[in-house]
Amino acid sequence: MTDQASAAVLIIGDEILSGRTKDANLSCIALKLAGIGIEVIEVRIVSDDEAAIVDAVNALRRTYTYVFTTGGIGPTHDDITADSIAKAFGVPIDVRADALAILEAHYATGELNEARKRMARIPDGAELIDNPVSKAPGFRLENVHVLAGIPLLVEVMMDGLLEKLSGGKLLHTHTISAYIAESHVATGLGQIQRDFPEVRIGSYPFLRGGKSGASLVMRSTNDAALASVCELVREVIRATGEEIQADVAS
Amino acid sequence: MTDQASAAVLIIGDEILSGRTKDANLSCIALKLAGIGIEVIEVRIVSDDEAAIVDAVNALRRTYTYVFTTGGIGPTHDDITADSIAKAFGVPIDVRADALAILEAHYATGELNEARKRMARIPDGAELIDNPVSKAPGFRLENVHVLAGIPLLVEVMMDGLLEKLSGGKLLHTHTISAYIAESHVATGLGQIQRDFPEVRIGSYPFLRGGKSGASLVMRSTNDAALASVCELVREVIRATGEEIQADVAS
Repeated sequence: MTDQASAAVLIIGDEILSGRTKDANLSCIALKLAGIGIEVIEVRIVSDDEAAIVDAVNALRRTYTYVFTTGGIGPTHDDITADSIAKAFGVPIDVRADALAILEAHYATGELNEARKRMARIPDGAELIDNPVSKAPGFRLENVHVLAGIPLLVEVMMDGLLEKLSGGKLLHTHTISAYIAESHVATGLGQIQRDFPEVRIGSYPFLRGGKSGASLVMRSTNDAALASVCELVREVIRATGEEIQADVAS
Repeated sequence: MTDQASAAVLIIGDEILSGRTKDANLSCIALKLAGIGIEVIEVRIVSDDEAAIVDAVNALRRTYTYVFTTGGIGPTHDDITADSIAKAFGVPIDVRADALAILEAHYATGELNEARKRMARIPDGAELIDNPVSKAPGFRLENVHVLAGIPLLVEVMMDGLLEKLSGGKLLHTHTISAYIAESHVATGLGQIQRDFPEVRIGSYPFLRGGKSGASLVMRSTNDAALASVCELVREVIRATGEEIQADVAS
């Protein structure tokens, strides 16, 4: 279905699962990966629980080209991601000299307490991921990339990582929106989808100010097919008598 | 670890995975379930792909008390959730009279086209879930609840469902925030966590206007233990010399 590299994101944290905090990292990671031709195919959100993290990491790392985890690498008792990743891979973990050196250079004398030293616990065989903001590093072990949970840190860690990832063909996206009933375009869209299997056509209904409509999102690595499909989709919308409200490459 | 009923949420849709649209439904579902003592333990987000939906539904329904899916029950070609659920359970699916009657009563003569009739496809043995806004029903098959994707519809469908679910003890949450370095409270928090295993203590760092701090979130079904832990956490924060910025039951 795709000639892109694949990725999964594992979001770790009770606070997201509780519904009290909304995740802000998936969008950042997915958009940055899309920019180099890597598509996020699956996301899991699990609690701060070792067995849950181990099971999810092992399932995802065997299925996708890349895995990215967020959260759980700070200094407190509930930060168990690094140890859980070590367990998933069956490798030892301890405070590592290179990670400790980064923290020693960052903190003033006496400030690198035992809790902060926990942030230098890195599984054997992992490569550090640079954190230019708060210094405590993430790490990569095989195809699993372990990132912080704070959105600003995820963003800068991802920026540093991108050049090290092998992307695929870029997936181009075009969105056409109108105040159409989905059911009035469904037959036409279904026919276009059957005729152009290399373009994925998604229909996303919305309610805005009491008016219902749909955003039709076309995605493909094949620009010519994408352009053909967009023109056919415009014709299907025009046939309903509704005006196109948005028509943008994105 | 918990005497609550458990739940998983399965979010279906390429548009969420792409990072272009942020999910708004998890928070709604998790908060409503928490209100009746059901805790969301795992979330998966998968693409509009039958095999991915089938695998996720089968994994989740065997692990948790309840599963809630969102998305993919509209009239277009990419709405494959109902058929995927039928496949996951190995039961037939077709347009069902009770669901069709709801749509017939809602649409004006001639408006119930073939695309809309697809929304009456319900797996054998399922019970309909009421959709008081746009009428096209969701359904429950055993412990799997299939909801729409539009946030307003998810909200009203959940409201109608809640009285039919068997909840557990209410998990009470208390949040205490301060401009503390996590590492300055980590030892104290770790000790409190060991002393009160019936309270889960989470530490969530934040950056606000360049100042870093942490929200400490205590959760328990045991009110007395929760109150004791909160008082101990306040002492740990006061010992750092920082003022408490927020201290709220939530």
